[in-house]
Amino acid sequence: MKKLIVIYMILIAAFIGYVTLHQLNSKNSKDYGLESGLRGEVDEKYVMVTFQAGMDYWKRGIKGFEDAAKVLNVSVEYRGATQYDANEENTVLEQVIAKKPAGIAVTAINPEALTATIDKAVQAGIPVVLFDSNTMDSKVRTFLGTDNRSAGATAANQLAKLIEGTGKVAIITRPGQLNHQERTDGFVDTLKSSYPNIQVVAIENGKGDQAESEQATRRIIQQVPDLNGIFATEANGGIGVGNALLQTGKAGKIKVIGFDTDKGTLDMVKNGVLSETLAQGTWNMGYWSLQYLFHLHHGLGDSNGESISTLPVYTDTGISVVTKTNVDSYYAK
Amino acid sequence: MKKLIVIYMILIAAFIGYVTLHQLNSKNSKDYGLESGLRGEVDEKYVMVTFQAGMDYWKRGIKGFEDAAKVLNVSVEYRGATQYDANEENTVLEQVIAKKPAGIAVTAINPEALTATIDKAVQAGIPVVLFDSNTMDSKVRTFLGTDNRSAGATAANQLAKLIEGTGKVAIITRPGQLNHQERTDGFVDTLKSSYPNIQVVAIENGKGDQAESEQATRRIIQQVPDLNGIFATEANGGIGVGNALLQTGKAGKIKVIGFDTDKGTLDMVKNGVLSETLAQGTWNMGYWSLQYLFHLHHGLGDSNGESISTLPVYTDTGISVVTKTNVDSYYAK
Repeated sequence: MKKLIVIYMILIAAFIGYVTLHQLNSKNSKDYGLESGLRGEVDEKYVMVTFQAGMDYWKRGIKGFEDAAKVLNVSVEYRGATQYDANEENTVLEQVIAKKPAGIAVTAINPEALTATIDKAVQAGIPVVLFDSNTMDSKVRTFLGTDNRSAGATAANQLAKLIEGTGKVAIITRPGQLNHQERTDGFVDTLKSSYPNIQVVAIENGKGDQAESEQATRRIIQQVPDLNGIFATEANGGIGVGNALLQTGKAGKIKVIGFDTDKGTLDMVKNGVLSETLAQGTWNMGYWSLQYLFHLHHGLGDSNGESISTLPVYTDTGISVVTKTNVDSYYAK
Repeated sequence: MKKLIVIYMILIAAFIGYVTLHQLNSKNSKDYGLESGLRGEVDEKYVMVTFQAGMDYWKRGIKGFEDAAKVLNVSVEYRGATQYDANEENTVLEQVIAKKPAGIAVTAINPEALTATIDKAVQAGIPVVLFDSNTMDSKVRTFLGTDNRSAGATAANQLAKLIEGTGKVAIITRPGQLNHQERTDGFVDTLKSSYPNIQVVAIENGKGDQAESEQATRRIIQQVPDLNGIFATEANGGIGVGNALLQTGKAGKIKVIGFDTDKGTLDMVKNGVLSETLAQGTWNMGYWSLQYLFHLHHGLGDSNGESISTLPVYTDTGISVVTKTNVDSYYAK
């Protein structure tokens, strides 16, 4: 009986010891404001706000946002204007701000339209980061998105490889829209500096429209029958180019680099009408947006005072090249 | 006695229950490859490798690396060549690679010298990111550092504010060194596009040397007695400018924007000889380098296959403006 009591006493001591140790551990890591590692609370809710919320384009970004929520043990919500409509996005953003979430990742429908509402969120003390499309002059200091000049340079290098560094190429783009101008500039500058035997023979306005881009491509092919390659700076342009090549029997002969990963574009990469397309790092935009918001919400960062930013100013979320070989993994799920 | 046994039984049951529950919790979160939140193991060691390892310049970066290690519960080590010597940095890096750490953050002494050794690390399966100074053509896809064009633009905006948008300004720089060229370009382009009443009257070579920069400044002041402002693109240049102003009685009259936060520069901001200096986001470089390495080591990221990058390609770690008001928090500790 005495022995039994001793065993019980040991067990009780072990139990108390275990519980105490565990609580001590929790307390130690609480010094850094977090219970253990980077781990939030499930009632900590972060919201992503977009426009044209149903577009395939956002799906990988939402996935990144959700993946970050899983590893950080927090909750996320996805909200967006259904249309390409600045007023509607402003309304959605106002509703989100009213609920005082732990943080908001916003993509701005255009550089001016959302600035006032975004600043209202910042003034209410809600952490905000911008992704994909930046504002011009808001109080938000952190932007994540594609470096479009660098994307254009990638297009130039890929197309140069496909046509073996020699020949005539054309561009179908939307002149006057900043991201497309930057893609065009990066493409042209890279060819100029690195590929002296490649000549840009035409830069045409496809107006972001399949039919317009198709007609522009047909015109170019008529004027330059020995054209070797085309870079389309946006998705509809690429599909228009593809259709023109199919109709003129040039598919596969003229090499084409498209942009983005909507279903039409991916289908044309799969059947070889487009040689390659460039995928933006949208998963990265979502994932690192949430990471940054989490850091802002938890006041993680440099302890040296508010004058020193605790977050990167700009994050280039990168471009990846989609070919026939890897195209299947890019279809939206 | 019977009562006592019942109590003992309950306690034992509680103990077993508690332990089981705790293990269950751990198991659940292991689904994401991590025990709970973003939290590594203490025996997971990440290494930062620099050159001129004793420089004040690295201190905030090391602090950022260490701060990230704390929140992620991993270990870090700091290694570096003692001199400005590519061979020495290569040797240090070889030694680090031989120990197979969980990840390495390297700053490249120049764009070519370390590429082969860095690629060796990547081929050995060790996660590598580059910070502060990039390589030209290594297998590393992720770089964190200052956007020097944008830093030059900040200098232009700050100097324009100080001289109220009107006057004559000069630049003391190191022509031919890429980061200084970019700072100069960003400065000049911003003045051209936004401040039509500010004229750049001289761009002089200070050779990264205090005495040379001092002489260059004296020459400029002699030729342009009504000079209003100077931008020095690196620390020694700024101190040289400061000394020239002190000797010519122009201190405080000609506004100066310096660069970086070594003690000499901060002292001159404190006593008003330099109006402001620009601090690079070195804490950010260290902190986010470790975050990215942690993600690579734990295979966190997009599950859609290796063709899609899981990390941002480029992270602009930002610039902050150091004035008399906030200068104290920038001294190295």
